[in-house]
Order: sequence, then C-alpha cells, then structure tokens
Amino acid sequence: MAEDKKLVEAITSMDVDFAQWYTDVVKKAELIDYSSVKGCMIIKPAGYAIWENIQRQLDARFKETGVENVYMPMFIPESLLQKEKDHVEGFAPEVAWVTHGGLEPLQERLCVRPTSETLFCDFYKNIVQSYRDLPKVYNQWCSVVRWEKTTRPFLRSREFLWQEGHTAHATAEEAEERTIRMLNLYAQFCEEVLAMPVIKGRKTDKEKFAGAEATYTIEALMHDGKALQSGTSHNFGDGFAKAFGIQYAAKDNSLQYVHQTSWGMSTRLIGGIIMVHGDNSGLKLPPRIAPVQVMIIPIAQHKEGVLDKAAELKSILAGTKAFGEGVRVKLDDSEKTPGWKFSEQEMRGIPVRIEIGPKDIEAGRCVVVRRDTGEKLEVALTDIEAKIPELLAEIQKDMFERAKKHLEEHTCVATSFEEFNRNLDEKPGFIKAMWCGNQDCEDEIKEKTGATSRCMPFEQENVSDYCICCGKPAKKMVLWGRAY
Amino acid sequence: MAEDKKLVEAITSMDVDFAQWYTDVVKKAELIDYSSVKGCMIIKPAGYAIWENIQRQLDARFKETGVENVYMPMFIPESLLQKEKDHVEGFAPEVAWVTHGGLEPLQERLCVRPTSETLFCDFYKNIVQSYRDLPKVYNQWCSVVRWEKTTRPFLRSREFLWQEGHTAHATAEEAEERTIRMLNLYAQFCEEVLAMPVIKGRKTDKEKFAGAEATYTIEALMHDGKALQSGTSHNFGDGFAKAFGIQYAAKDNSLQYVHQTSWGMSTRLIGGIIMVHGDNSGLKLPPRIAPVQVMIIPIAQHKEGVLDKAAELKSILAGTKAFGEGVRVKLDDSEKTPGWKFSEQEMRGIPVRIEIGPKDIEAGRCVVVRRDTGEKLEVALTDIEAKIPELLAEIQKDMFERAKKHLEEHTCVATSFEEFNRNLDEKPGFIKAMWCGNQDCEDEIKEKTGATSRCMPFEQENVSDYCICCGKPAKKMVLWGRAY
Repeated sequence: MAEDKKLVEAITSMDVDFAQWYTDVVKKAELIDYSSVKGCMIIKPAGYAIWENIQRQLDARFKETGVENVYMPMFIPESLLQKEKDHVEGFAPEVAWVTHGGLEPLQERLCVRPTSETLFCDFYKNIVQSYRDLPKVYNQWCSVVRWEKTTRPFLRSREFLWQEGHTAHATAEEAEERTIRMLNLYAQFCEEVLAMPVIKGRKTDKEKFAGAEATYTIEALMHDGKALQSGTSHNFGDGFAKAFGIQYAAKDNSLQYVHQTSWGMSTRLIGGIIMVHGDNSGLKLPPRIAPVQVMIIPIAQHKEGVLDKAAELKSILAGTKAFGEGVRVKLDDSEKTPGWKFSEQEMRGIPVRIEIGPKDIEAGRCVVVRRDTGEKLEVALTDIEAKIPELLAEIQKDMFERAKKHLEEHTCVATSFEEFNRNLDEKPGFIKAMWCGNQDCEDEIKEKTGATSRCMPFEQENVSDYCICCGKPAKKMVLWGRAY
Repeated sequence: MAEDKKLVEAITSMDVDFAQWYTDVVKKAELIDYSSVKGCMIIKPAGYAIWENIQRQLDARFKETGVENVYMPMFIPESLLQKEKDHVEGFAPEVAWVTHGGLEPLQERLCVRPTSETLFCDFYKNIVQSYRDLPKVYNQWCSVVRWEKTTRPFLRSREFLWQEGHTAHATAEEAEERTIRMLNLYAQFCEEVLAMPVIKGRKTDKEKFAGAEATYTIEALMHDGKALQSGTSHNFGDGFAKAFGIQYAAKDNSLQYVHQTSWGMSTRLIGGIIMVHGDNSGLKLPPRIAPVQVMIIPIAQHKEGVLDKAAELKSILAGTKAFGEGVRVKLDDSEKTPGWKFSEQEMRGIPVRIEIGPKDIEAGRCVVVRRDTGEKLEVALTDIEAKIPELLAEIQKDMFERAKKHLEEHTCVATSFEEFNRNLDEKPGFIKAMWCGNQDCEDEIKEKTGATSRCMPFEQENVSDYCICCGKPAKKMVLWGRAY
C-alpha cells in the first residue's frame, strides 16, 4: 500500500503551511495548471466542471429575477474608459492595452475589459430613450483581465472568469432594491449551494468600487482565519449616467438620468470552496456543487460479478434524483489499486464513496463512506436508491453547519486596540469593533495590524461607544480581518 | 393599423437587397447592436438566448462523446504563436497585440487568441507523458479575436464567440476517427436542431486550416445562393506535436508523437439560421433553437377573463414538453396593439403564435398561427396541450425539408467553364464540377468567377472526366460557390 499513500503525502499539511497546502490541493486535485502566460491559469476539467455547476445554478437564479444575458465586446477604447473619473483612476493602472491590430498600430488603444461598466453605459445611452425602456437588467458571463503583480490560482489571476450584471432603472429606489436583491441572492447561493456562510454588509468608502455610490459585499471566512470577499453589488446612483449622458423621458415628459447597479461573482468562489471545506486529504466539495457526487470503487474487480454489480449500482443511482437533479455518479473501473482510488476520490473531494466487493455482494450490501467526516456506513443494496439522496442532503447541511460554527468561533469582539491586535494573532478571524467613520483610523488600523475593514455588517451591534482607533464617538460597527 | 405595419416596413425586401435585408433583420429582431469598438458587436438578449440554446444542446452532444471542458488563457506569447510555421503565417496578420500591462511595457508581446492550438499544445506537452494519459479530448467555450478589415454581424466580426475542441491521440487512426466524428456531430446538429442542411466534405489544400494536414467542413447554402462554411474539423497529424515536442511513452516504452485534432463552430451559425430560414417579415427560428417557441397574444385583453384565460394557457403549455424539454412559452400582455404584437412576434421569428380573445373563449378555442407558413388553425382549448408539441415538431421538420429542397434546387452540375459561369449568374448556388487537383485552376476559377472551392464532398460523383478549368484529367469532384 506504499503507493496508495503517495497522493496524500504529496500535499503539505494545512497546519504547517496553509498557503502551500492550498497550492498543493489546487494542483493535486487537478483543478488548474500553470500556463506559459505569467499570471494566467489553465482551468482543468475538474476545476471547470465546478465552474459549470456554479454558472448553471447561479444563472437559473438570476433568470428567476428577470435577468437577461448579453455579450459585450472584450475591448474598451481608451476614451470610453476615461469617461468616469473615479472609475478610470481605479482601473487604469491594472489593465492590459492592445496597441496593434494585425500589422498596423491602432489609432486609439483599447484595453481588455477589467469590468464592463463603461461599455454598458455606452450601450444604455443608445437604447434607453423612454421610461418604457426601463429597467434594463442585463448580465454577461465572460472573462476579464487585471494586470496583477502577484497572483494565486482562483484568488487573484490576471485573467479570470466571472459574471457581471449591469442594470439601469428609472428611480434611485429601484436601483437600491436591485443592488440589495442581488446581494441577497449571492448570499443565499453561497450558503445553500456552496455551504459557505457569509456576512452581508456595506463597504466603507475606502473599500468601495471605483465609481460606486455604495458597494455591498458578502464576506466569507477561510479555514486559516482570513477573509474572502466573495461577491459584491454596487449602486452607482446616477454618477455614471451623468458621465455618459444616459437620460430617459419620464411619464411627465421630463428628462431624467437613469440609476444604475452592477454586481459580480467569479471563479474566486472556487478558491473559497477549497479554503472553507478542504482538509489534509485534499478537496471537499459540497454535494450540490460537486461535478461527481458519488464514486463507486469496486474491490477485487477482477472477480466475477463485481464489475457487473458496480455498474448496476451506478445505473440505479444515475436514475435517482438528489436536489432535484439526477445523481452525478461515476464508477472507477481503472487498473489502479482500490487504495489509490480511495485517495484520489478524497483528493478530488467527491462527497460519497461506495465500496463494493465480493463479500459485500454476497451479503447484499455495500460500504458507503462520507468524504466530509470519514464515517463508514453499511447500506443494504436494496436501500441504496433511497439512502444516497438523503445522505447527500445531510452532507450538504452538515458542511454548512460546520463552516458556520467555524465562522462563529472565529469571530470576536474587540473594544480596545490591544485586544484587537491580540485577537488577530491568537485566533485569526473576524473582529467586530467600532469605528468613528474617519478614513484615517481605517488606514492606521490597516498599517499597524494588516487587517482591513471587510464591511459594515447589516446586522449592527453596539459593542462599545468609541472608535477602536482614535477613541472618538463611534458611528458604525465594522467587521475587520486580514483578507485574501 | 398604420402603426402596426411600421416594423415590417422597416426592413428591406430580401429580393431587392439581400445584404441590407440581413442587416435590417439583425437589428430589428434585436439580435445585435453596434458598439463603440469598431468591428465588434453587442449580442443582445434575443441573440444571446439563441447562442445559449446552441451552446446547451451542442455541449450535451459533445459530452456524450467524452469531451471535457476546460478554460485556457486568452493571451498567447508571441514566441509560442511562432512555434508552428504554417500556423503563425496564417494568423499573425490578423491578431490583436497586447504590448502594455498597466503602465509598463511587456517584455514579450501577447496576442489575443485567434484560436488556441498553440496554447493546447503547450499544455499537452506538460500533461501527456504516457499512453495512459491519452486520449485528451478537451473543449472550451470562449471568445476569439481576428482583426478583420470588413465585418458583418455574426458572419465576420473582430471578436466572436465559439467553441474550440482540441484533442491528442496515440495513433493517426484515432485522430482521424475523432476528426470525422466531430464533423458528423456538427452536421447532425445543424440538420436536426438548426434545420439547416449541410454538405460534408474535405477542403482543398488551398482552403485548409493553417497548420492542418486535413480540414473537413460542413457547407450550408443561404437563401441568396451563397455558401456559408458552418463548422470545420481539422486533423493535424503529428505536425504540431513535432513543433511543440509532445511525446508519450508507448506500451513498448518507445517515445511517440501524439496525433491531434481541433474543431469549432461559432456565433456565425446564427447568421446561417437567419439567411437560411428568414423572410420578408423577419427572422424565422426553428423551434428547437427558438428561445421562445410560442407567443400568446390576447385580443381585447381589457375584456374580462381574457388575460386570465391567456395566463392559464401559458401555464398549461409551460408544463408540457416538446423535444424532451418544457415548452418555452410567453404571454405578451403589454399595452401594444395586437397587430403590433403580431409583427413583433413575426420579426423575432417565434415559431408559433396563439391568438385568444373573448369570442374564442366563448367558443372554447384559440387561433394558432405558424410563423413558417402563415397558416392559421383553430384549435380547441382542450386540445392545445397535445397539439402544440406536435405542431412544433412538424414545423421543425418542414423547415428542414424546405431548406433541403432549396439547397437541392440550387445545386447544379457544370461540365464546362461557360456552363459554370452561366449557372453562377442565372441561378446562384452550389456547382458540382470536376477538378484536376492543381491549385492554379482553383486560383483561376476564383479570380474569374468569384467562386471558391467549398469542399470535395464525401459523396463523390463523376460528373465528367476532365477538369472544368484546364481540361486535364479530373481527380475530384468539387463543390464550388460564392461564399460568405
């Protein structure tokens, strides 16, 4: 069995070096590969299949709220990018510039979209004339480019996949309603589908999106106590509309500016799944997002009847539903040893393993192993069709509960700067602390502790009366943390 | 009713100016919009929904043959693009070059992928070691960029959406088998789903893909008699493998080069659908690809009970299946006049319209109108659930038959250059004519007639013994035509 251990031994323990553990899992679970293009990753089949599941389920939720998909050009002319002042300042330093088309230099250089607000504004300016044309609730699935200096797979790469929703509304109220609605949709998706609990809140002015009036965020907590901004939803008010001249004739015939929003989630979520759920045996995928939910591994597969029975089991399960869809089941009948197959299935995070060998068949049962707990169950073959969907639902629920408990246990309150600092070092996680509302304090905290304001949670508490930094009267409770 | 006619009057008759008719339909059916980025289009909801249907159905067919999806970087370093000589010569003149990242010039410029053979080769070189790693059957859905001088929506634009499959195999036979298999899959998809008949064949050396050993194609015939190359599948032999050094250890431990293929279809297909099926009232979508299959239009909707009955009809149909999926049905209860709604539904190519008003309800029936023929049927409300799926299947079949008949009627044989020329002018379409195999003749025909060799059809006929151009003994029957 020496060979069987190799795969697990190939990854660093998460307690020894979390960053290295992450990189090892990403590689050994075959989610990505590095490419010849610095800072850009290749998303391999096991990684892309997770993204396909995210896309499909998120897209269905979008469409239920009236979202329509479109596709915009990937290039933005420099003059268009420059139309909204804050926006261009935020993005210009990190865009890739196209200067030549074929053998000729371009008259105006084009940037590869880092985000598409400017393109949508230019579009809306042309297609919105009357209140009858509103609202526009468009979204696109695409890749974007940001020329980052340091990169990490899924978390920060020069190109990544995402969706970006862009909407235009007649009133400020409608825009705010859409902004919050999408944030709630994101939070629900993360919690229900990715089993990843999040804190909803508003970003401080320092942390908000370039050009936004308000940015809302969902913040998740990784296993190492660092925060991951997992989705954002922005209300632009009429700022972009004024910069681009997007006006409509209202019912009373007056000319009004539209109010806009945008919201996005990306392949970064895959990094979140890894760091919230993974362990020293590798990836752990919540069943609702797992490309393969059940892996059947035959024992002594050369013996008569074993592969037949395993295949029969597979077809029974494929015809069964879990979470309203057919169970995603595979049979590993390759030449590898069962032990090697076990550790592969664990590394790849497949939620349930079924072991079936000659003795099991004789006894009319199989062994079912949960990836999340390692628990082994003996299940009668006649019960398997009913048991598996139930078990998948249970695993989904338990994984969420476990992550939720971790988040709660790693969230503490600080009422003094000392306490803040001590907490950060002793039990890394979220810290709830009061803030005066002054950016100087935010800057100072970041400089001295490395922690940033993650958000001003919607659920405010009055944990003390004074700003943790300057001691002046507090305005808001902020959730702080070191972040990816 | 003057207003009702406006939409139809807004498009040029196809008999007057086919190119203008196409542009008008594309705009008035709200498939695309032009953008501020020259040569790049915005795909609007009605257009993108067609692409989503293509993607979903094509992707399912891919996966049945063992295809796995991945995502590769959108940038190709210049040195990588240059590794295969023919390939770089074919693509370098039409790529967009990124020269700056953020504020700094790049050490090596990057092109935005025009196609990703080089990236996949670089990837396979790293992940293929042994025969056990083969085959690799990967695909990606993405956008690509080609810096075209003249562009047309869907048919030729600087950025377009497509899928590109890239495979690596142990043997030449396996690679050829995959190349043909994908071509057949493409042909079946076009005929079954898009109701678009195609001719399968092999490209001449002049027309093959840059770097390929053999290129296979499916060619469709548009309403104006021009050909549209609708999908291609390439066999690279071991040419790229040698250029990139992609070798594997065979069972006998010898080092062998892999054999590769690639194959792609794009948003160009949407242009094909428009030009094969459309008419002077606008778009005509085959039911299997139509984002909305049935539009219910209430008559006198302010009258009591009309909207309720229409909504009831909608929910009945949404719960019914056609082609194995829920019927895609909408109810237009907007404030517009019924006449205006009719012409909108026609312009947008929705296959079936249901009209229902107070008199219909009283009589327990509704009026069902086919978009493809204009035929009106009275259908009892109790029969509608059974009738609609049947009708959609019939429309799908009839649209294919009609397009097939058009293709056959516009395919003729020429045994002399004169006949060839006369046919091209009098009845534009495909011409079957013999060819000696010499590129000089191909060039001469193109120069003198504007027709190119579309393919050497798999179904060869001996229509004469001599080359249509030089009169020397013929080697192949070629399908010729003017093309998009």
